[in-house]
Amino acid sequence: MAGKKVLIIYAHQEPRSFNGSLKKVAVDELHKQGCTVTVSDLYAMDFEPRATRKDITGPLSNPKFFSYGVEAYEAFKKRSLTSDILDEQKKVQEADLVIFQFPLYWFSVPAILKGWMDRVLCQGFAFDIPGFYDSGFLKHGALHFCGFKVLAPQISFAPEFASEEERKAMVASWAQRLKTIWKEDPIPCTPSWYFGQ
Amino acid sequence: MAGKKVLIIYAHQEPRSFNGSLKKVAVDELHKQGCTVTVSDLYAMDFEPRATRKDITGPLSNPKFFSYGVEAYEAFKKRSLTSDILDEQKKVQEADLVIFQFPLYWFSVPAILKGWMDRVLCQGFAFDIPGFYDSGFLKHGALHFCGFKVLAPQISFAPEFASEEERKAMVASWAQRLKTIWKEDPIPCTPSWYFGQ
Repeated sequence: MAGKKVLIIYAHQEPRSFNGSLKKVAVDELHKQGCTVTVSDLYAMDFEPRATRKDITGPLSNPKFFSYGVEAYEAFKKRSLTSDILDEQKKVQEADLVIFQFPLYWFSVPAILKGWMDRVLCQGFAFDIPGFYDSGFLKHGALHFCGFKVLAPQISFAPEFASEEERKAMVASWAQRLKTIWKEDPIPCTPSWYFGQ
Repeated sequence: MAGKKVLIIYAHQEPRSFNGSLKKVAVDELHKQGCTVTVSDLYAMDFEPRATRKDITGPLSNPKFFSYGVEAYEAFKKRSLTSDILDEQKKVQEADLVIFQFPLYWFSVPAILKGWMDRVLCQGFAFDIPGFYDSGFLKHGALHFCGFKVLAPQISFAPEFASEEERKAMVASWAQRLKTIWKEDPIPCTPSWYFGQ
């Protein structure tokens, strides 16, 4: 939709991969709609996945006992997180739509993306794929907890075992979905009382 | 047990944390038994969690289309993985017992440990906690797939909400368990046919 800002968090090493194609059609389709598209290409950026005390610039709140969660929260309030985190948080805050584009390995995510979620959003949450690999208990993990409205995932199964034609159809169906993604309703998530709120 | 080699993969930033205490009692108890204990302290080592083409020294098998899985497997056979991976793989191969010691955040693991598993064992598998957070489908993920016999996990729930006394009891129960860990039977895992073997 014209004027909307979209952020794509992209985690694949090879631009010519199936993931690369999905990212490319998304950028093309969203540009066609008049959106502003930003891509955080995590491998190309050499994004730091380690959550360490280096993430906090300035003095620690408790230097004698380092707790990443406590220190990151204090530093967030004081705007003293490292610039790579602040940059990503700014992109997230400005975005109307955030797309995570990554290979799904046996229902897990690349460590570089796990690190992005730990450092930019909130350390520690699991990532689960609603309706597919959700334990019920954990429903929608980090994204919902951090205030996202979560849309249904787009999953392309086993592209390495699909024919060229089938892969093209998977890519086309993603581009097709993006045409009307702005009209989609969020999927139901764990109620906030679950998180003590 | 005297003469046994134990490897502890330890992923916590703060030595004085609850995780640090669990690691320390394990080292002490295993030393007492006459074991050789090696600790891979991932944060202290600044272990690289990103799985990239830098992991392959020497020429790529297909430089025009980078597939981490393919290249890492070829490099494994040719012994041309980077030295940090080779070092860890050697430790794993020599160990009679491997202990993963890490904080469990909403059933997920720190990115640095996910990266260790992706690079040293096998990219992409999810980590699941048998009998606690297993989907049934994925049972025991990377460890079982890579040929480990998996023992029941030792889980200390919510140490930050426990009293000092309760935390001490959790630490003591871990030390106690280690006294007879050599007699434990592996838990049942997904049969190998599931992985096409």
